[in-house]
Amino acid sequence: MPVYTCTTVQSALSAETKASLAGEVTRIHSMINHVPGTYVNVVFHELEPDDLYTNGEPARPLLINGWVRTGHPEAQSSQLVAEIAAAATRVTGIPAKQVLVVIQNSPAHLAIEGGRVLPDPGEEEAWLREKAPH
Amino acid sequence: MPVYTCTTVQSALSAETKASLAGEVTRIHSMINHVPGTYVNVVFHELEPDDLYTNGEPARPLLINGWVRTGHPEAQSSQLVAEIAAAATRVTGIPAKQVLVVIQNSPAHLAIEGGRVLPDPGEEEAWLREKAPH
Amino acid sequence: MPVYTCTTVQSALSAETKASLAGEVTRIHSMINHVPGTYVNVVFHELEPDDLYTNGEPARPLLINGWVRTGHPEAQSSQLVAEIAAAATRVTGIPAKQVLVVIQNSPAHLAIEGGRVLPDPGEEEAWLREKAPH
Repeated sequence: MPVYTCTTVQSALSAETKASLAGEVTRIHSMINHVPGTYVNVVFHELEPDDLYTNGEPARPLLINGWVRTGHPEAQSSQLVAEIAAAATRVTGIPAKQVLVVIQNSPAHLAIEGGRVLPDPGEEEAWLREKAPH
Repeated sequence: MPVYTCTTVQSALSAETKASLAGEVTRIHSMINHVPGTYVNVVFHELEPDDLYTNGEPARPLLINGWVRTGHPEAQSSQLVAEIAAAATRVTGIPAKQVLVVIQNSPAHLAIEGGRVLPDPGEEEAWLREKAPH
Repeated sequence: MPVYTCTTVQSALSAETKASLAGEVTRIHSMINHVPGTYVNVVFHELEPDDLYTNGEPARPLLINGWVRTGHPEAQSSQLVAEIAAAATRVTGIPAKQVLVVIQNSPAHLAIEGGRVLPDPGEEEAWLREKAPH
């Protein structure tokens, strides 16, 4: 269900580091938002040095944008963003001051996966029990 | 007005398939949301195999993120997401279980195209009749 | 805090033009939304010619997607999107009819930078005065 998109410059993250970060983001999201890891997607965009700017100068931030379903409890969302941000620095070694994590959301009924409209937060179990059409 | 961003791994989609999917997404959005096809944008991000993960493992999902103006009727939005998801599998052959379609939105007044603020849903005709400044 | 993502085809923008656009977007956002330029990120995605479509045909639009914190005054947001759109054409020479600027937002408490949850609009000064933990 969720998609986390990590944007940074080429060579900032090794293949191993990307795999580790994908693993940690999946573990954290799965634990906090009650979604099986098989539904957590992590995308990396690795850009040329002249395609990423902070303060109008070429820079090397790590920008993480997460999309989740609208309606998770406030405290849960705060914990999610905090743990993702902490993991980003812990796994990659990129200092926290260069890391920005943003969570965006849409109503579950505006998303389809496996041919089925996603469940609202809290209704994952029933949704997962139902047989997917494909 | 809308932007559909399709993310997958390199070689998952041929040039022909991308063109066909862009065409279908344009046709569907145009029909359901009453926007001329000339305003429908489709973007493809084709990533290296180690830049896309599901469940913390390299994977080959097709992730489609659509941006539309806030305020379309609920039933229209549900139809939109369903038809885009069905077209994704029909055109690409990628099984529905690997396809995630998410629609996000912003108020029309937070978007500008052709030098003009976009119209709210339902007010497209008057907007299109007005002469653009460029 | 904000992230502006500019998507177009390869060779549409020279390295110099990208740097100029990043500088202008930073200056405009900083001035209007009261955020130091050091917190403004600009990303460029330069795609292959067959990865970008308008009306189902390969095309060369300039798509700019900005993420900002929810809660800026309406007039401020309208000015922001207008000035970003004007700068895009002024700096790149791409005609306004090929430029789409969209602003999306999330609540500040769903974003973390420098290890700290972002301030709501209007509370930037106090936030900036506090010592960051890293």
